[in-house]
Amino acid sequence: MNKYSHIQTEAYEANMQLPALGLVLFTFGNVSAADSSLGVFAIKPSGVPYADLTPDKMVVVDFEGQKVAGDLRFSSDTLTHAVLYKHWPKIGGIVHTHSTYATAWAQAQRSIPVFGTTHADYTTADIPCAPPMSDEMIKGNYEYQTGFQIIDCLKNNSLSYEEVEMILVGNHAPFTWGKNAAKAVHNSAVLEYIAKMAIVTEQINSQAPRLKPALIAKHFERKHGPDSYYGQ
Amino acid sequence: MNKYSHIQTEAYEANMQLPALGLVLFTFGNVSAADSSLGVFAIKPSGVPYADLTPDKMVVVDFEGQKVAGDLRFSSDTLTHAVLYKHWPKIGGIVHTHSTYATAWAQAQRSIPVFGTTHADYTTADIPCAPPMSDEMIKGNYEYQTGFQIIDCLKNNSLSYEEVEMILVGNHAPFTWGKNAAKAVHNSAVLEYIAKMAIVTEQINSQAPRLKPALIAKHFERKHGPDSYYGQ
Amino acid sequence: MNKYSHIQTEAYEANMQLPALGLVLFTFGNVSAADSSLGVFAIKPSGVPYADLTPDKMVVVDFEGQKVAGDLRFSSDTLTHAVLYKHWPKIGGIVHTHSTYATAWAQAQRSIPVFGTTHADYTTADIPCAPPMSDEMIKGNYEYQTGFQIIDCLKNNSLSYEEVEMILVGNHAPFTWGKNAAKAVHNSAVLEYIAKMAIVTEQINSQAPRLKPALIAKHFERKHGPDSYYGQ
Amino acid sequence: MNKYSHIQTEAYEANMQLPALGLVLFTFGNVSAADSSLGVFAIKPSGVPYADLTPDKMVVVDFEGQKVAGDLRFSSDTLTHAVLYKHWPKIGGIVHTHSTYATAWAQAQRSIPVFGTTHADYTTADIPCAPPMSDEMIKGNYEYQTGFQIIDCLKNNSLSYEEVEMILVGNHAPFTWGKNAAKAVHNSAVLEYIAKMAIVTEQINSQAPRLKPALIAKHFERKHGPDSYYGQ
Repeated sequence: MNKYSHIQTEAYEANMQLPALGLVLFTFGNVSAADSSLGVFAIKPSGVPYADLTPDKMVVVDFEGQKVAGDLRFSSDTLTHAVLYKHWPKIGGIVHTHSTYATAWAQAQRSIPVFGTTHADYTTADIPCAPPMSDEMIKGNYEYQTGFQIIDCLKNNSLSYEEVEMILVGNHAPFTWGKNAAKAVHNSAVLEYIAKMAIVTEQINSQAPRLKPALIAKHFERKHGPDSYYGQ
Repeated sequence: MNKYSHIQTEAYEANMQLPALGLVLFTFGNVSAADSSLGVFAIKPSGVPYADLTPDKMVVVDFEGQKVAGDLRFSSDTLTHAVLYKHWPKIGGIVHTHSTYATAWAQAQRSIPVFGTTHADYTTADIPCAPPMSDEMIKGNYEYQTGFQIIDCLKNNSLSYEEVEMILVGNHAPFTWGKNAAKAVHNSAVLEYIAKMAIVTEQINSQAPRLKPALIAKHFERKHGPDSYYGQ
Repeated sequence: MNKYSHIQTEAYEANMQLPALGLVLFTFGNVSAADSSLGVFAIKPSGVPYADLTPDKMVVVDFEGQKVAGDLRFSSDTLTHAVLYKHWPKIGGIVHTHSTYATAWAQAQRSIPVFGTTHADYTTADIPCAPPMSDEMIKGNYEYQTGFQIIDCLKNNSLSYEEVEMILVGNHAPFTWGKNAAKAVHNSAVLEYIAKMAIVTEQINSQAPRLKPALIAKHFERKHGPDSYYGQ
Repeated sequence: MNKYSHIQTEAYEANMQLPALGLVLFTFGNVSAADSSLGVFAIKPSGVPYADLTPDKMVVVDFEGQKVAGDLRFSSDTLTHAVLYKHWPKIGGIVHTHSTYATAWAQAQRSIPVFGTTHADYTTADIPCAPPMSDEMIKGNYEYQTGFQIIDCLKNNSLSYEEVEMILVGNHAPFTWGKNAAKAVHNSAVLEYIAKMAIVTEQINSQAPRLKPALIAKHFERKHGPDSYYGQ
């Protein structure tokens, strides 16, 4: 036991959900769990198979991306997580995967249109796709810049990180977040589900219309608005 | 034990079939089971994971949509179920899911063409897709109006709820029904299977013809007609 | 034990492979196993879930389609099996499924082109798709006529039932056969696999060419010719 | 125990991963493991179901394709493996499968474009597709010539077998390799994953661009370059 074991356990359990939900092949994904009062997060070590993980192998890192505790090298995507935690104070978990359909939309460099209520139950907007970074950003501190690419994409789409908890990074893959690691993993599974339905929708009707504004508002508000009536 | 435990057990068992048949992610679906002599139905509580369900957590509701028994808040789709039970006296179960392929057809706002005998074993008609509701209906009592959207769509297609036990609600997702909850779940699985085959059929041949009338009649009648010879 | 228990056991075990191989939803398929010396075959009873099957529930039928033994009603497709056994003396097993991709090709009314060596390992020809039957044939003895539709389709394509052990019946679904029931089931799984690969191939390259004749001959002969060197 | 049991065990364990990873139907694949100091490799016997394999059933063959030890007939693809081991001294494992999406690209006779970072984590190049062989090569020693078809395809694309560890053989199916059998199997699973994402990417955007050079270089180098920082 140490003062970080609560987030190490949270990160461990959330990481183990990625293969259980079919969101990763081998080590193609990572989850982190943050404690904003301590200013740190626990994240998967790099390249370690999920079957070999234990809570104490989770690496603890501060919001500047400096290792605070742990014996292993942290995930190569750690600096992206650090940037997001630093700028978005209300989130407690982040997930990165290369799940098949969400990654295909990222590779296609297209935002996912809001085609139905399944999507609107999570966000009223298209799931944005950030453009590929400039060569200068790539050759600089790549993972650090990926964080800013995500933050800037939301800004450019006039979206807050509370309105949409998922994004595609162009040519790369999705990132999702939430109030804690479990919610961020939930959002990753939902994003993959929505991503598959969206391309099948276009295959059935290449002119499929977006959901009409009244339905977008209704579905989002019944689940998230002040008068929400979904859940217990 | 209480006087509703038979439908609570029926609804519980049918709800548990949804994840077993791969028809739901997380809590994206609900089943109800009705007792028409009592004028009530039991339905899944809202937002509760399937793994946490028990028969006594099923909420009992009357055909006006008023809670009769149960501690939890009922599914947010409950009023849609209530409207259908009130208007269709011979049904005993209703299912709503967001299963991938059926939902994609709903998002594409297209009815599913009767392309083969698998489809004709269940209904002689295209699976209808109800148009999205008017903004007035959406802003009113949304789930209640969804029930009427379903009823009106069948009427406008000159279909009875006994001829076709499945429908797509445009931009939303499918509903199915049947003589009891198990049959309604069976129909949901069949609808998802047909929905996937139909889009693959169009991908193989964009001009694929509908099943000819003589085959539609033959397959439906050998399973459902007065001289049916399918089953024991 | 009775004098048919060997084929009842063979048919039972082969039927149980259909759900194990993912080839059926609910009761959408049936397998039969024949003993040509006795002139009979054992086949799945109609509409009975696979989980409820036992060897002694298999119905024994002669090659004219008359029940010889068994308490249950035989599969509604039994007459199709009978016609094939009567006309093709060297086969010992037949399978009918509505597996997703093979059925989609049948619904699209297209033969499956020989796109690669996976296909050529089984047959040198396109997998033929029989045209839908005439209305007269449908209104007559439908399942009996389906058998002749299959036999005639092979004839019209100058194929023998030993060269190709699988066929699509237009607007309906696939049938496969083989020296015994296990080989017929094997062929059903292979057909579904080939059917999926063929549509994905066309999606990747809408002008994908057929396998060249030298490769077709090479792959078929190394597995089936007089100088075959595949297997033990 | 014999002097080859280390590679027989390695080959056995790697072969058993093929069905576990969903890469094969029935016996549609084979893995070999080489010991370059002994100049031999162990490979799956031909046509034996995976469930019946044991380490001692693996057949030991030298780099000329001559059997050195083992009671069973070796895989019909053995000569292809022998040619690759003979010409590529640094590899220790080879895999051949007919996995669905990779085989579909081979049947479509297209190289897989480098659409994203998932791909670039493994190779900076498109996954090449070797053209079908000439009729003379097919009618000669087919499997032996397949090895040269692979070697020549890399040469013609100015690629080394260390830069790209996977290839498609046109109209046939994929081959992968690596420092040992486990890495070759890992590459087969990754290839299938990339192959599926690539066609979905094109379905979402038929004009999807390749990954830009700066990103290709960044992702490959962070995993494989002298300053790599992926893994432990």
